[in-house]
Amino acid sequence: MGAAMLTDQVTEVLIPVAAVVGIAFALVQWLLVSTVKLSPERQPGGGSNDKNGYSDYLIEEEEGLNDHNVVVKCAEIQSAISEGATSFLFTEYQYVGVFMAVFAVLIFLFLGSVEGFSTKSQPCTYSKDKYCKPALANALFSTASFLLGAVTSVVSGFLGMKIATYANARTTLEARKGVGKAFITAFRSGAVMGFLLAANGLLVLYIAINLFKLYYGDDWEGLFEAITGYGLGGSSMALFGRVGGGIYTKAADVGADLVGKVERNIPEDDPRNPAVIADNVGDNVGDIAGMGSDLFGSYAESSCAALVVASISSFGINHDLTAMCYPLLISSMGIIVCLITTLFATEFFEIKAVQEIEPTLKKQLIISTALMTIGIGTVSWIALPSSFTIFNFGEQKQVKNWELFFCVAIGLWAGLVIGFVTEYYTSNAYSPVQDVADSCRTGAATNVIFGLALGYKSVIIPIFAIAVSIFVSFSLAAMYGIAVAALGMLSTIATGLAIDAYGPISDNAGGIAEMAGMSHRIRERTDALDAAGNTTAAIGKGFAIGSAALVSLALFGAFVSRAAISTVDVLTPKVFIGLIVGAMLPYWFSAMTMKSVGSAALKMVEEVRRQFNSIPGIMEGNAKPDYATCVKISTDASIREMIPPGALVMLTPLIVGTLFGVETLAGVLAGALVSGVQIAISASNTGGAWDNAKKYIEAGASEHARVLGPKGSDAHKAAVIGDTIGDPLKDTSGPSLNILIKLMAVESLVFAPFFAAHGGLLFKMF
Amino acid sequence: MGAAMLTDQVTEVLIPVAAVVGIAFALVQWLLVSTVKLSPERQPGGGSNDKNGYSDYLIEEEEGLNDHNVVVKCAEIQSAISEGATSFLFTEYQYVGVFMAVFAVLIFLFLGSVEGFSTKSQPCTYSKDKYCKPALANALFSTASFLLGAVTSVVSGFLGMKIATYANARTTLEARKGVGKAFITAFRSGAVMGFLLAANGLLVLYIAINLFKLYYGDDWEGLFEAITGYGLGGSSMALFGRVGGGIYTKAADVGADLVGKVERNIPEDDPRNPAVIADNVGDNVGDIAGMGSDLFGSYAESSCAALVVASISSFGINHDLTAMCYPLLISSMGIIVCLITTLFATEFFEIKAVQEIEPTLKKQLIISTALMTIGIGTVSWIALPSSFTIFNFGEQKQVKNWELFFCVAIGLWAGLVIGFVTEYYTSNAYSPVQDVADSCRTGAATNVIFGLALGYKSVIIPIFAIAVSIFVSFSLAAMYGIAVAALGMLSTIATGLAIDAYGPISDNAGGIAEMAGMSHRIRERTDALDAAGNTTAAIGKGFAIGSAALVSLALFGAFVSRAAISTVDVLTPKVFIGLIVGAMLPYWFSAMTMKSVGSAALKMVEEVRRQFNSIPGIMEGNAKPDYATCVKISTDASIREMIPPGALVMLTPLIVGTLFGVETLAGVLAGALVSGVQIAISASNTGGAWDNAKKYIEAGASEHARVLGPKGSDAHKAAVIGDTIGDPLKDTSGPSLNILIKLMAVESLVFAPFFAAHGGLLFKMF
Repeated sequence: MGAAMLTDQVTEVLIPVAAVVGIAFALVQWLLVSTVKLSPERQPGGGSNDKNGYSDYLIEEEEGLNDHNVVVKCAEIQSAISEGATSFLFTEYQYVGVFMAVFAVLIFLFLGSVEGFSTKSQPCTYSKDKYCKPALANALFSTASFLLGAVTSVVSGFLGMKIATYANARTTLEARKGVGKAFITAFRSGAVMGFLLAANGLLVLYIAINLFKLYYGDDWEGLFEAITGYGLGGSSMALFGRVGGGIYTKAADVGADLVGKVERNIPEDDPRNPAVIADNVGDNVGDIAGMGSDLFGSYAESSCAALVVASISSFGINHDLTAMCYPLLISSMGIIVCLITTLFATEFFEIKAVQEIEPTLKKQLIISTALMTIGIGTVSWIALPSSFTIFNFGEQKQVKNWELFFCVAIGLWAGLVIGFVTEYYTSNAYSPVQDVADSCRTGAATNVIFGLALGYKSVIIPIFAIAVSIFVSFSLAAMYGIAVAALGMLSTIATGLAIDAYGPISDNAGGIAEMAGMSHRIRERTDALDAAGNTTAAIGKGFAIGSAALVSLALFGAFVSRAAISTVDVLTPKVFIGLIVGAMLPYWFSAMTMKSVGSAALKMVEEVRRQFNSIPGIMEGNAKPDYATCVKISTDASIREMIPPGALVMLTPLIVGTLFGVETLAGVLAGALVSGVQIAISASNTGGAWDNAKKYIEAGASEHARVLGPKGSDAHKAAVIGDTIGDPLKDTSGPSLNILIKLMAVESLVFAPFFAAHGGLLFKMF
Repeated sequence: MGAAMLTDQVTEVLIPVAAVVGIAFALVQWLLVSTVKLSPERQPGGGSNDKNGYSDYLIEEEEGLNDHNVVVKCAEIQSAISEGATSFLFTEYQYVGVFMAVFAVLIFLFLGSVEGFSTKSQPCTYSKDKYCKPALANALFSTASFLLGAVTSVVSGFLGMKIATYANARTTLEARKGVGKAFITAFRSGAVMGFLLAANGLLVLYIAINLFKLYYGDDWEGLFEAITGYGLGGSSMALFGRVGGGIYTKAADVGADLVGKVERNIPEDDPRNPAVIADNVGDNVGDIAGMGSDLFGSYAESSCAALVVASISSFGINHDLTAMCYPLLISSMGIIVCLITTLFATEFFEIKAVQEIEPTLKKQLIISTALMTIGIGTVSWIALPSSFTIFNFGEQKQVKNWELFFCVAIGLWAGLVIGFVTEYYTSNAYSPVQDVADSCRTGAATNVIFGLALGYKSVIIPIFAIAVSIFVSFSLAAMYGIAVAALGMLSTIATGLAIDAYGPISDNAGGIAEMAGMSHRIRERTDALDAAGNTTAAIGKGFAIGSAALVSLALFGAFVSRAAISTVDVLTPKVFIGLIVGAMLPYWFSAMTMKSVGSAALKMVEEVRRQFNSIPGIMEGNAKPDYATCVKISTDASIREMIPPGALVMLTPLIVGTLFGVETLAGVLAGALVSGVQIAISASNTGGAWDNAKKYIEAGASEHARVLGPKGSDAHKAAVIGDTIGDPLKDTSGPSLNILIKLMAVESLVFAPFFAAHGGLLFKMF
């Protein structure tokens, strides 16, 4: 049991320091982005010597840096998008706030009732000889950490949206100087979001643990049980963010495309399209704020899952603070590693050509993974005793520190594998997407058939990667192994989020270029950024799903331990019906979200058509469309439609646990997990592939692509249909599914004491 | 333990008698169909007094019954379809025959090696005090019953195809006399297939049991273990039939539609389309022969699952023959009940109008279910002792006869619920399909989004129905309960197959009417038959999937018992990785089959385009297209492309069992089951809904439908795209998935002794 090298005092300093460094780095990046000026007043007309602080020559002389009109227009559009996004998020947060408040009360009542709101200390569940804090305290602190998680999630999503809407027009303006400058602006902004989120999540969690400790003292079992509420809060918020944002963005996107591109034959993001602002707002509230909340949720949950298992293992029982904080130390190391990795994209190298974008982003993944492997090794070596025991469903399992290193590392590398496979299936540089594009020759139907087949196929390797990670980490360190494997996959979250957020920022930048009437060559550059962004978005979703699978399993394991179930035997009717119904839930959920997008898009189409038909001069660009009505349609639809799927996910564990008991609930969780992962991966990749197949035809960069193109050809029209179908798959239902599986698991974990005490009413009655 | 009322002697007579009655009834129906004459020679020109034996007046005087040309043309087309189908099936059977032979050798070697090919008797697995036949005998008889099952499956599929291609032109000709006559012809022909198949399956199984008994004597445990090979043979054949037939039919269908309907704007089934014969052949080899093999496989497997569990329960241990034969008695009763039910459609009532078709078919389901409930009650009352014990994973569970009645009945009624839900989601008489049709207003993309959402949603109630059946039957009578619940769902298989086969026959009849140049009104009638057929096909698929879920679970239970696993605990890494990889397999499989259809369709499109461009006079109808080349493309593609998905399904259990052992294999089976059921249901229903949304617009029977139509409108074009996408979903990948889950389960069961003895090599090595 050789003790760890790192003393508790050093640990207590290192974690907050790493978090603060991460936040500081994010602020520096923000500062660098802000040097791109959006206010043209300060440059008195066209001074060619004053190049705004840059030493490059203008590549596009016809749109000089200081072209007053262009800059003003960009600033205007940006502020419209930013206002739209802010106003939507505030509306969303109001509604979700009510839901959260109600749910907080539920948590308190359910958990408080476990011991009849008694204020007396009780014997601990796992160490019967000690006394632990009463269930009422658990109820109170779980509620508090739930609210804390929800608020942190809101802040994460909101800050992400703010920086994204701050950066999009700046990226457009930088695109005038070349693709490299634009790339750096977009990527830096993504980094702001990535680092703020990772550091913030870590810091809040760390502070919460220390505050809770003031009350809990030596009762670490109770302390870390109460902390799991943090994960629940984060994920609940993320669910509504993803679903609401996803419906918003895709209703606007689908609606805008169906009338603009298909019927009126005007380009994407054309300012004459009334839904264009709503579409751009959507990118920020869906892909940015939603994604931010989602990954924050995963991060919070995997930390909580690891901590709760550790608290009943030798770390917790022996009060070994440094080893207990191992998950937080991994995250701290992740921030530092990602910081170094970011410099490779922004400082050490510079992008000169369009072809370098994707490799640069890919290198970010490889560099961060390679460095992090060393980082994990270091943390495992200095923070863990050479041998310790881990709680494993009623037994304690002997684990060595190098075994735990393998658990984290395999999660990390599985993430890289998933990332690469996703890239292979969604980038138009490889044959799968090119085959899909090729199938557009015979129309939309074959495009859809090939796209669906691609999505199904893209599931195979990620699932094997997840299965291998699960097997190895499970065998080495039981559920704790899985939890830290998930943390390993998420340890480079700052980099992952940076390249993820980069996508929608570039997408918006392209939209702003189009709306500001900038030249074709600017648009080509932002399109190149955006095409790479589609792939990175798919990669980000791959990470999100892979980590969600591991996190859910870890939470599932923690739930089973806490609910005192010894086996989850498929061969019992209670478990099996849970399994099959659980496997159905992702379909039910997807049906709701897909239909919501479809209905909202129909409404949007009608409104856009109405405006085109009734506002004279709109097609000629003489009259301004009524953007606000379209924004309102998206807002109303998403607020209204996010409730039923949200309720489905939030209420299922409560209903199943209360009426059918913990065994059936365990079945539901396992079923939803193994079925949801597949749909989520295939939906994301199918959508990404369709989007890039369309871009492949539009870009016409190869002989093959030119045969299929140009824009407006039959094959291109077929590709647009595929792209539109893919929109809700990849941005609404697909990515929401990982929240579904995580959230149900963490909710079950939080409510486990109640279900164990009072659950299974229906079976008790008969 | 009150003994059963039915003596063994009576049982031994009743079962074969019921089977023979079923076969006789089928032959009578065939005879009735054959009274519709396809040879015009026998009526000397236009004798209006001689109405071909019918007393009706001609409804369509312009195409008199004895119009020589029309009849000759129909006969010609029919023989072309029949020849094409026969030749394809022979080619298919040759390839599959080789595979089957190799697999038979594998079975013998694997099972024979369990005890090192020893010829000595061994202590029984479940009754250690008795001696059972050696593993070598099990290997030999399992191989024999495997081959028997495969041959019976071939015969079932082939006979179905024969009667269907015998009936299609006759249905067309009868359509001249009115929709009622055409309906009866199509329905009778479906009944021929249904009864032949049900009775034949029962008879062969019964004979096999009696022949095997000559060797096995009192060793019922060994006898019924060996009999499980029958199920494996039936399902293996069905897999290739479904996949090969599915690829064939959809490559032709999609290819024909994409060029004919979309590019050339000629109607479906137009004789100028070179792929039209291949399309019609496809209906017979895919929907008829494939479906026949599939449901025969389900029937054989559920019987085998029930028998093998019964053999180690008190029925088997006490050598209570009548109770042991309970599953066969249920099937015998099913034949008699279906016989009576059929008379309601063909004798007691007559259809006069198009609107009566769907209600009549629906009534068939209701009547057969209601009568069968009484039938099950009777069988349970007279054939079962009032109380007995059932093997339940190492224990014997006390069961009463009325409890077993509930198990069978709940399966039966769950089937009805699934049927009705399927009808609701796929018939254009209800709002779901109408909503999908409505979404075509905004183009193909919204149509696809709404269609996918509909498919996902349609999963909910069937899954609950399956879950309830599983829970009830599992709780009452363990795995035996599930097996007989599956049998209950399949007990009305003769009626189910009749209304199922009716669909493709009507589809073909429509095709023949079009090709023979018959009038618009004839085509309208066959279209009405066909629209109802789309719904019944979806219902049939619903039944097939629901029963497959129950059958697989029963087989899974039998496998677990035979492999001597006591629990399948999700919380062990071995099981969990099996679960998640198993849940992935349906996606892998679907990716293969979808892509195969897509690629084959692309080839078909190129060939059809080539013919339209290179054969002069083809569009004017002056030159005959080269049908044979299209038939060859479909044949080659399906033969080549059925191998990889077939190998995936057949080899997975062998590889997993041998390398990873029985626990992981149990996980794979459970995962594939819970995930596959969902995809299968949603794929079938999405496809059915798209097809009927298109028909809804084409028929223009309501104000709403007329707004969307007519044929050729933008909304209709969007609907055609949806229909085309749905083709491989509903007819290739969807229905093949139930075979995937059943086949892997039955294969695991057959190989269980080998896996238990020698499996898990990989884990043994480390």
